Amino acid sequence: MKLYDSQMAPNPRRVRVFLAEKGIDVPLVQLDIGKQEHKTDDFIASVNQLGQIPTLELDDGSHISESMAICRYFEEIQPAPALFGNDAKDKAIVEMWNRRVEFQLSSCVAAGFRHTNKFFAELEDQIPAWGELNQQKAPGRFDWLDGVLADREFVAGDHYTVADITALCGVDFGKVIGLRIGDDRPNLARWHAAVSSRPSAKA
Amino acid sequence: MKLYDSQMAPNPRRVRVFLAEKGIDVPLVQLDIGKQEHKTDDFIASVNQLGQIPTLELDDGSHISESMAICRYFEEIQPAPALFGNDAKDKAIVEMWNRRVEFQLSSCVAAGFRHTNKFFAELEDQIPAWGELNQQKAPGRFDWLDGVLADREFVAGDHYTVADITALCGVDFGKVIGLRIGDDRPNLARWHAAVSSRPSAKA
Repeated sequence: MKLYDSQMAPNPRRVRVFLAEKGIDVPLVQLDIGKQEHKTDDFIASVNQLGQIPTLELDDGSHISESMAICRYFEEIQPAPALFGNDAKDKAIVEMWNRRVEFQLSSCVAAGFRHTNKFFAELEDQIPAWGELNQQKAPGRFDWLDGVLADREFVAGDHYTVADITALCGVDFGKVIGLRIGDDRPNLARWHAAVSSRPSAKA
Repeated sequence: MKLYDSQMAPNPRRVRVFLAEKGIDVPLVQLDIGKQEHKTDDFIASVNQLGQIPTLELDDGSHISESMAICRYFEEIQPAPALFGNDAKDKAIVEMWNRRVEFQLSSCVAAGFRHTNKFFAELEDQIPAWGELNQQKAPGRFDWLDGVLADREFVAGDHYTVADITALCGVDFGKVIGLRIGDDRPNLARWHAAVSSRPSAKA
């Protein structure tokens, strides 16, 4: 088993943090996004038809891509600690918050970056106005998450879950568009300090 | 239990088809998106802070939103027939294909519609160039799915899953940007005829 990874991108980090929380060690294969190593003919033909990382290679030679699909695979083969929730309602709530953070915040930051930055000029059909709109909206999405965290310890409730991993990676990635937590989001700052102090955050 | 629904939108349809495949009957509350009934102060305060449908109201008064979170709730409380996969690898593959279809195809069609259509002028900060780019890309995403289906019966392999539901709703929603399967995508047409003939497709 091995994981095609990139230290530069937020989605591979989600998987690395998840694995660290599980205490699972998977050999990493570093790809350089800047050199488009995930877009080579060989990678697309033999690993991931969509040219995306992270991608997990199983021992039978098959491949799983999409960060949340990879995380779910490990949740299934090693359920503890549960990071996708416990019972039916809890699992649904974790999924809801994971997707809300993904679509409201992480996607907003990513679009704000990918559609405006020269780094992505060759990787993305850039629409600068779309990138600028997302950059304008991103601070409000940080405000939203600050409000969400006003009455709870973690994003999906009272325990650490994959939704916190998604939020951590999304919030930290805000730096690429110059967005930081700052002093006006005390709940987000308190939560961020807590989740960042876990050893997994360094993965 | 009740489900806040809209007959007009593709995401609520995903949940209705899923419930029909499970044989689960949940009372529906119809909201008129055109009248912005999902954006009223009351709905946002008491049902869904993000003003989105579908949203499931449980008997304890709590709410689950995000179509895939709602579907996962029902998968947990009634596992058969399994629509999110069976074993660890199968579940990961289903999640991978569900997300690939969602991000490559459904989101493309939706952005192509929401950013260009007058219907969404009040609901979306429209960036017409972003909508037009997505409209240009959408036929290629249909071609991609046609290729995916060349060597398998269903989107995620040899059995019907939630990835087929996502794909069905995404492909059918293509009509809002004038996109149909046509005669040049035989695998997509064969698959579409099969999944559309299931009673659930009418849900």
